[in-house]
Amino acid sequence: MSPTPLRLGVAGLGTVGTGVLRIVRQKANLLAARSGRPIEIVAVSARTRDKDRGVPLDPYAWEDDPVRLATRDDVDVFVELMGGSDGPAKAATEAALAAGKDVVTANKAMLAIHGQALAAQAEAEGRVIRFEAAVAGGIPVIKALTEGLAGNEITRVMGVMNGTCNYILTRMESAGLPYEEVFEEANALGYLEADPQLDVGGIDAGHKLSLLASIAFGTQVAFDDVELEGIGDVTIEDIRRAADMGFRIKLLGVAQMTGRGLEQRMAPCLVPAQSPLGQLEGGTNMVVLEGDHVGQIVLRGAGAGEGPTASAVMGDVMDIARGVRLSTFGQPAAELAAAKPAKAAMPAPFYLRMKLLDKPGALAKIATILGQSGISIDRMRQYRHDDTTAPILIVTHTTPRAALDEALTAMEGLDVVAEAPVAIRIESV
Amino acid sequence: MSPTPLRLGVAGLGTVGTGVLRIVRQKANLLAARSGRPIEIVAVSARTRDKDRGVPLDPYAWEDDPVRLATRDDVDVFVELMGGSDGPAKAATEAALAAGKDVVTANKAMLAIHGQALAAQAEAEGRVIRFEAAVAGGIPVIKALTEGLAGNEITRVMGVMNGTCNYILTRMESAGLPYEEVFEEANALGYLEADPQLDVGGIDAGHKLSLLASIAFGTQVAFDDVELEGIGDVTIEDIRRAADMGFRIKLLGVAQMTGRGLEQRMAPCLVPAQSPLGQLEGGTNMVVLEGDHVGQIVLRGAGAGEGPTASAVMGDVMDIARGVRLSTFGQPAAELAAAKPAKAAMPAPFYLRMKLLDKPGALAKIATILGQSGISIDRMRQYRHDDTTAPILIVTHTTPRAALDEALTAMEGLDVVAEAPVAIRIESV
Repeated sequence: MSPTPLRLGVAGLGTVGTGVLRIVRQKANLLAARSGRPIEIVAVSARTRDKDRGVPLDPYAWEDDPVRLATRDDVDVFVELMGGSDGPAKAATEAALAAGKDVVTANKAMLAIHGQALAAQAEAEGRVIRFEAAVAGGIPVIKALTEGLAGNEITRVMGVMNGTCNYILTRMESAGLPYEEVFEEANALGYLEADPQLDVGGIDAGHKLSLLASIAFGTQVAFDDVELEGIGDVTIEDIRRAADMGFRIKLLGVAQMTGRGLEQRMAPCLVPAQSPLGQLEGGTNMVVLEGDHVGQIVLRGAGAGEGPTASAVMGDVMDIARGVRLSTFGQPAAELAAAKPAKAAMPAPFYLRMKLLDKPGALAKIATILGQSGISIDRMRQYRHDDTTAPILIVTHTTPRAALDEALTAMEGLDVVAEAPVAIRIESV
Repeated sequence: MSPTPLRLGVAGLGTVGTGVLRIVRQKANLLAARSGRPIEIVAVSARTRDKDRGVPLDPYAWEDDPVRLATRDDVDVFVELMGGSDGPAKAATEAALAAGKDVVTANKAMLAIHGQALAAQAEAEGRVIRFEAAVAGGIPVIKALTEGLAGNEITRVMGVMNGTCNYILTRMESAGLPYEEVFEEANALGYLEADPQLDVGGIDAGHKLSLLASIAFGTQVAFDDVELEGIGDVTIEDIRRAADMGFRIKLLGVAQMTGRGLEQRMAPCLVPAQSPLGQLEGGTNMVVLEGDHVGQIVLRGAGAGEGPTASAVMGDVMDIARGVRLSTFGQPAAELAAAKPAKAAMPAPFYLRMKLLDKPGALAKIATILGQSGISIDRMRQYRHDDTTAPILIVTHTTPRAALDEALTAMEGLDVVAEAPVAIRIESV
């Protein structure tokens, strides 16, 4: 008796969808040997059929409508690679689940917004939703967190999960170029989403963080509670000054459960230049998982691109072929708690950059204000005067955000401060 | 109807076993929430019962004999944490499988030697053997390779997987101490196995590499074919000279499938000091997985210790609790091919260190021999003479090992060479 094939319907034939077609086509024997059954693509769907994608579409049935694809009788797994939080992706995913199909998706936006409802629907139908490809491209981080570290209380999850932002920040540093210029470069290279705010505004990375946080802490996905700050305000001056002090600036996502609730933030942070996160160059992604028993696990790999993302999709497909059936976020949807959001106020050291007017006692006034707010200084550096002002860098010891805000407000009233101070959190990694 | 608990019998109550008891005890609710059923330890076994392990043993039935433990009617999963390739560990594992129990083990030696037979037995009985804890401690690398990267043809697996060796090598460099002295330090700190050759001879790391290679390439575990070289001959001088040239020396395992067969080697290698592998300090482990679609995935974490290793054991237990059932090495044992072993002869650049007598034309003779063997020089450095000899460092371009061996033999006959040249492979990472 030959084993039953697993039959896929693939919706969305962009880079990732094409990559999936390629792998299934080229690796039929390997996939069958590893999963114990043939993996077949029976039907595909995309916006346009007539486009040279470098892979033949003739072997597959064509559907114009992804909902029809998702509900075909001969499809076991609906592979959703269209993207978009709503619209056809969501409609087809819901239809697939209702028709008793498992779903594999790379759609972080859809899950960040509708994940709870979709997970509940999947469980009601006895189906699974898998989304390894939605977070950090080819890095098997969902698997590591949900399965490999399942014996741990997760204490913190961190990640550089938007390759475009990391490319822009590292390129600003290496080429000494301002943000606007590198942004245009990245745009010309096709690195940016149609809506660039998804990348540089931190939204895409925030979607990913909210999915990791749900698994890590057993909470409902709460993307709206992610404190988002993009990289648009990061200056080449801060990148250089931070480097002087031994730091790099990264768009870093951090999720941790605190006594006050769940803290989720995606914002530019300083990390030690010598740390694994600090050394991450270009489009590579890195996720750091911390558990109470396992300690710190660091995962690094390509965060995007045809091969890596298709690899992640296929990992999910292979799990389904092998009979692995897990809850979408690692626990039944009904048992995920509504997380109480906490303002990102965990005490941390901060990097402060300011310009002081060349007046006697200027630095003393700053130091006094910091002291009055209970903030102690780890390191301070004053640079040579530039006409009438002098740049000052301060690295504080760990301080509550509220104390820092108090100090920053007090500084605004000083007559020696030439422009509003810049404050960036330093994440201990 | 309340869900059926998963009942464990734990044999071996050293560091890891104690850690497993602690996790199951402290995290009952979390484990049940994530797996959908209670995880219970019903019975334990160890060499001595009366020893303060910091965890109570009263809640569990006691068995003096691990075979009896493994075959108890009330045990679903036999957790083998005794160690040793044969003896009680193997007997109890076989008995457990024969009695219809699943097995979770941290025993790399047993699987490296008897893995094929045990996997075949498990499959004949419809049981699974899981061994995440056997390789790289808390890093979920077996899972990443077997499941996450299942859509890839694996092209190379590399790893620093013996924390003790990495500790010794990094300590030699940072403290400027010779091997023998740091070895004694490590011994005094309890870092070494009872038989230190398991660590410093590369055997333990070689066991791990052979398990990864089996999964990666779909081949039978072939530990006997691993070319093993320990760290005992690494000198502080080579560590320093390598650092001068921008390299670090690591006990690196590499497995790759070549046109000539499967190459498995565990030997000191030079890696770029700035690479993730080069920057690995102390007891941390790192595994690098390379797939044709995913590219390079780097995993880093604690390679030993109670928490990390127990975390890996619990990851396997949780998978079994969740109903995940995979072949031991990612494919049915009967389908694993017997790998043809290939001598580790893949061309590579090499680091050469030698001492030349202070004679005119000495360097020319070396350069001539290299040229005659078809070896071209990437970088060369001659240090100041030390009495009558001068240290010479050469970094070659990529060259076949045979050509290098030919050149080394020719150099031995030269009257200008003060001591036999040292050659260390440089791994591109």
